[in-house]
Amino acid sequence: MTEATYDVVAIGNAIVDILAQADDAFLAQEGMAKGSMQLVFSPEAAAALYGKMGPGREISGGSAANTVAGIAALGGKCGFIGQVADDQLGQVFAHDIRAQGVRFDTASRAGEPTTARCLIFVTPDGQRTMNTFLGASQFLPEAALDRAMIEAAAILYLEGYLWDPEEPRQAMRAAIEVARGAGRKVAFTLSDTFCISRHGDDFRRLLADGLIDILFANENELLALAQVEDFDAAVDQVAAQVPVLVVTRGEHGAIAIANGERASVAAEPIERLLDTTGAGDLFAAGFLHGQAQGRDLSTSLRMGALCAAEIISHYGARPEVDLKAMIAQKLG
Amino acid sequence: MTEATYDVVAIGNAIVDILAQADDAFLAQEGMAKGSMQLVFSPEAAAALYGKMGPGREISGGSAANTVAGIAALGGKCGFIGQVADDQLGQVFAHDIRAQGVRFDTASRAGEPTTARCLIFVTPDGQRTMNTFLGASQFLPEAALDRAMIEAAAILYLEGYLWDPEEPRQAMRAAIEVARGAGRKVAFTLSDTFCISRHGDDFRRLLADGLIDILFANENELLALAQVEDFDAAVDQVAAQVPVLVVTRGEHGAIAIANGERASVAAEPIERLLDTTGAGDLFAAGFLHGQAQGRDLSTSLRMGALCAAEIISHYGARPEVDLKAMIAQKLG
Repeated sequence: MTEATYDVVAIGNAIVDILAQADDAFLAQEGMAKGSMQLVFSPEAAAALYGKMGPGREISGGSAANTVAGIAALGGKCGFIGQVADDQLGQVFAHDIRAQGVRFDTASRAGEPTTARCLIFVTPDGQRTMNTFLGASQFLPEAALDRAMIEAAAILYLEGYLWDPEEPRQAMRAAIEVARGAGRKVAFTLSDTFCISRHGDDFRRLLADGLIDILFANENELLALAQVEDFDAAVDQVAAQVPVLVVTRGEHGAIAIANGERASVAAEPIERLLDTTGAGDLFAAGFLHGQAQGRDLSTSLRMGALCAAEIISHYGARPEVDLKAMIAQKLG
Repeated sequence: MTEATYDVVAIGNAIVDILAQADDAFLAQEGMAKGSMQLVFSPEAAAALYGKMGPGREISGGSAANTVAGIAALGGKCGFIGQVADDQLGQVFAHDIRAQGVRFDTASRAGEPTTARCLIFVTPDGQRTMNTFLGASQFLPEAALDRAMIEAAAILYLEGYLWDPEEPRQAMRAAIEVARGAGRKVAFTLSDTFCISRHGDDFRRLLADGLIDILFANENELLALAQVEDFDAAVDQVAAQVPVLVVTRGEHGAIAIANGERASVAAEPIERLLDTTGAGDLFAAGFLHGQAQGRDLSTSLRMGALCAAEIISHYGARPEVDLKAMIAQKLG
């Protein structure tokens, strides 16, 4: 096995987020479950929802893309594979991830549909409720995989969200084979409870088949995956199936179980919770970067907590401060 | 003269801002004068500069558009006239200004060039340095003017920036005639010292011809317009030519001279200066809304200062809080 030249290569939705403020009454009126992600399938439905949205701001997003952008900001070497269309939002996505130092070479796709957009309604409590029009992102073909880049990455990172559309799902299955064939690790994030309700059987099979080395979940996702109601039972059950399990618990911090070793971290205090968009993505960034640097489990968790705290104190899921300098200062 | 059904109708550049962080060394390397606005004429040059920019966020902008968005957020009734292209950024601009409650009916323009973009480099001191690709905005034709809307507005508001391209300049001259013919007031913002160096003779002639009722300038713009070096002399000279003169002085607050009456306001203290983009635009919004509500000169200035303070405490030139509630609370 040759030495890895990338820390993490990710496959995920290539999305531009459109964030606007909304109140709880709006979510209720639109039948949205707060904190969830739902898919919007038709361009017409997406346009209609956009029409009801307040003034917005556009910031590149996508769960796994946010994670590699975070790792790059921390000083790690990353690549990203995802499908944008040949349009202005596709240019914005490509610019932002490259400007963050992430290698991104997936060719844009001509014609309809447009680049994916995620309409994010941020309520006064800082929670985000997402409506994703997958657009071009759902057409990522297996042929778009840069196999050499995947083989050269210590970790392949995949997002559960992208399991929804068929083409990217096949691409991700192929990518797992490439990574494992090269002796690399595979990390996976469960993304969302609704995503698990759609694809839980697939996710459980990936674990049972020993194809996942590092699994990220929040509390609700872990319970949904384990199909039990007790948190500790869920942790024990899933930890037995994966070498490294990381569970984020919002304001209650996070825990990790790695080959029997157990560690936990408190949530990092913040001045003001503004927008939780990207909290899990950036937690994963901090944790994975810690692991890539050979940090111990506790320190990796703390790096995750620090990155998550930065991202929820402003709008959008891409870092606004020099994460590398922040981590160096906080860890001393 | 019939009663006005709009408080303010503005004509200005229809721009989507792309904001990114940069340091002073970058500005120096690129030969940019901090705090200024320069035009980028070719799409290739704009793309090359975008390529050097860090990860960005897109927020609708445009000086006069920001001002009417602010007045609408304060509860005023506004319209906007400006040219976007038939593309994604044009849709973003149209969505945001309509979602703020501003009437915007200017038909989008097919084909090249794209919707205007302003690449804004925000330095750690909060100053913004702007590079504007005018795109479709420079092709606003006189035929696009909604004359009935202009006639129905108490105030027509024009931005100096849009004096650069020929078609919108002619459109603005025609709009001044429409407004004055209907017995309405005309407000004008000088926008930028470089803009005055290009069009100072025109601006001075507008004043000399008595075509402007309310003039907005910052200190440097006032000196450039008056072509003197002494601030008080400049104030006296220009105030003699316009019924209402408003001069913003950054951290030193602002003054207004209206038909011999003089008032001043201190800058509103803020917790953290993050991005000065839109400070002047939102000052104008607060002042004009105060005047539209029949507030006295001092109160109108204070409303300007409060709106400017809100906008510089976050990224982007569109309000993020409920300005109407904020003003009600602060003015008591």
